[in-house]
Amino acid sequence: MPSPSPLAPEHIPVLPPIAGIVLASANCGIRYKGRRDLMVALLDPGTTIAGVFTKSKTRGAPVDWCRAGLKRGKARAIVVNSGNSNTFTGRAGVEVVKRTAAAMAKLAKCAPGEVFISSTGVIGEPPPADKIVDALPATAKSARADAAAWRNAAEAILTTDTFPKLATRTASIDGVTVTLNGFCKGSGMIAPDMATMLAYLFTDATIPAKVLQDMLSASNERSFNSITVDGDTSTSDTVLLCATGKAKHKRVARANDPRLKDFRRALDGMMIDLAQQIIRDGEGAQKFVTIRVIGAVSAKAARNVGLAIGNSPLVKTALAAGDANWGRIVMAVGKSGERVERDTLAIAVGGVRIADQGGPVPGYDEAPVAEHMTGREIEIDVDLGLGRGKATVWTCDLTHGYIDINGGYRS
Amino acid sequence: MPSPSPLAPEHIPVLPPIAGIVLASANCGIRYKGRRDLMVALLDPGTTIAGVFTKSKTRGAPVDWCRAGLKRGKARAIVVNSGNSNTFTGRAGVEVVKRTAAAMAKLAKCAPGEVFISSTGVIGEPPPADKIVDALPATAKSARADAAAWRNAAEAILTTDTFPKLATRTASIDGVTVTLNGFCKGSGMIAPDMATMLAYLFTDATIPAKVLQDMLSASNERSFNSITVDGDTSTSDTVLLCATGKAKHKRVARANDPRLKDFRRALDGMMIDLAQQIIRDGEGAQKFVTIRVIGAVSAKAARNVGLAIGNSPLVKTALAAGDANWGRIVMAVGKSGERVERDTLAIAVGGVRIADQGGPVPGYDEAPVAEHMTGREIEIDVDLGLGRGKATVWTCDLTHGYIDINGGYRS
Repeated sequence: MPSPSPLAPEHIPVLPPIAGIVLASANCGIRYKGRRDLMVALLDPGTTIAGVFTKSKTRGAPVDWCRAGLKRGKARAIVVNSGNSNTFTGRAGVEVVKRTAAAMAKLAKCAPGEVFISSTGVIGEPPPADKIVDALPATAKSARADAAAWRNAAEAILTTDTFPKLATRTASIDGVTVTLNGFCKGSGMIAPDMATMLAYLFTDATIPAKVLQDMLSASNERSFNSITVDGDTSTSDTVLLCATGKAKHKRVARANDPRLKDFRRALDGMMIDLAQQIIRDGEGAQKFVTIRVIGAVSAKAARNVGLAIGNSPLVKTALAAGDANWGRIVMAVGKSGERVERDTLAIAVGGVRIADQGGPVPGYDEAPVAEHMTGREIEIDVDLGLGRGKATVWTCDLTHGYIDINGGYRS
Repeated sequence: MPSPSPLAPEHIPVLPPIAGIVLASANCGIRYKGRRDLMVALLDPGTTIAGVFTKSKTRGAPVDWCRAGLKRGKARAIVVNSGNSNTFTGRAGVEVVKRTAAAMAKLAKCAPGEVFISSTGVIGEPPPADKIVDALPATAKSARADAAAWRNAAEAILTTDTFPKLATRTASIDGVTVTLNGFCKGSGMIAPDMATMLAYLFTDATIPAKVLQDMLSASNERSFNSITVDGDTSTSDTVLLCATGKAKHKRVARANDPRLKDFRRALDGMMIDLAQQIIRDGEGAQKFVTIRVIGAVSAKAARNVGLAIGNSPLVKTALAAGDANWGRIVMAVGKSGERVERDTLAIAVGGVRIADQGGPVPGYDEAPVAEHMTGREIEIDVDLGLGRGKATVWTCDLTHGYIDINGGYRS
């Protein structure tokens, strides 16, 4: 693995076991030498599952498979390979997914539809079905519940990420403590064509699949759907959330059940933590940027304005240069397509308001802003002055590193 | 001016006079030392005008002024300054526009609403009203109709473009030959914050404003609205088309009048020529890229797919590296938001089909594709295989030059 991003977290979390889950990983030689490239999670009977996926129209065969499997809401195994995305691979790709699911189902003694599959890596190359299927029996046999198994699983799904991305939380449901573990990959395409964001989340809570799905979709909007590295959308994005039902709390029937309030908080927190780790590993990233938008006509409008800023190459190159170039933020807000009034818009950088009422703030102090811009963590606040909609978006700067990484790949 | 882009045209066109138009330019010291930064075009009475403008919600005061003026459809003067965009400049910016229009109207003996104004340059700095207004009388007095006047006018509106962008055409309306001249600036933001594309088009044809507007809007879709450098939308984009009515042909009442067929062809050709010159001056551009999309459900869908490809940082960095990375094209098509079927999609690069039917073309010859990718002019063909909608989009690659240019500005 290359040396960690300058924005990497100081410590990699140590994950506790979760009742009903064991994990394994292996090196089956798909693309990388001497690195794990296969991850298997085995889930006890009774595990429910929810998922959200890329909206890409050219999504990979594993994504189609997972979407179909979600209808049952039950999961017994997850199989993930890195090094090949099994995307735009035609009928052969579909066959690989079916073969993998059948082989894993036999080992886990479950239906193929209870096996969930993801692939991440290069697009349009024949997927290595034999390597995966041949490696499954020994890999599954080696599955463990301990911290090392979680860490190794998180490493097995990476492509050219510079650090493994893990998070854990606890929550109380009706007085019973449950655990949430999760890990993800995604680099904002540190190695492009591996343009994928994958996340696997687990809990011992007892939650029906429908309720799990509602909570996952809501938290996903505030976490993985609120980050951007370069605005390019993967063909393989997948987030799965599994609940083993081993925790003995009262049954919950709806996502807005007040007894799930603390769980929702913990799920939100864990997913935002993982999403931010992806930004901290953004390709070529030198700065971690938080964009808070308030005063929008809706939360969706606020997020779209935040993403317009976070996706603007001009804003991102200015950030890389340490230039609080608020004129470019005005430009990005203007092109967002959302309802915006030039004369109610206010912009602050590093907590200092520098523009409002349709113009620059007369005599604002540039010195603290310039100082803020030299740091690793940049804060941009935008008040649209129209309504109560708000959102936070996270992004990174656009540097020469991005060009090097994305121009140098595949050769 | 920096040395010309490697993609610059070999020759800068020499523009003929157009009856009813004289032009002047001056250096009034707005931002650049020793360079023209003010352009004035004087138009004879009877000139009709049409325009299209940025859709940005944070557009500059001059854009608001022009939009209001278009309602009359009559023009007697155009005033353009470079070096300051008069955008996000609050009430002061509106006053500058009014003062400039009043001063010019007095000189041209017309109504202020017949004066059209554009500004291009940095966002959010107080516009230099006195410098412009003071320079107007002498500048207007020096106006000429000859080729040097056209060339100097084209240079006066540049910001950090690396070459002036001019084009000329002739067309026959009902047997009478008319001339079309045009010039533009826009660099895809070679100096960002000067994120503006401006174009001024002129003809001696006799065409009512309403007809002129219909033709301009249609041609604009196929030219300036079909180019992208980085997907960032300016606060000042403006295209104006003026017809002096000096050519003595029969009256035309509708844009689809068959007698205007040749004129429409010439207008399309001139506008596409100018739009392509902007791409050839794209910031840091080393390659000129033509993306043809066919088989879409509509022309609009085809253009959006083309723009999704042309705006993708991953496609553009691959182009810079000379890598025919068609997986990234698949990714960009997938995220376009338009109707797309993975399994009817076909992709060719340099005329060689490399992917179709949901996968790579078995055994396609990589050698001519690799050879094509080393050139300055790259061709990408995408067939969505769904309908008859088609569009062509032009873009450039994303290089280290872009980061340098956009990170180094404003300091």
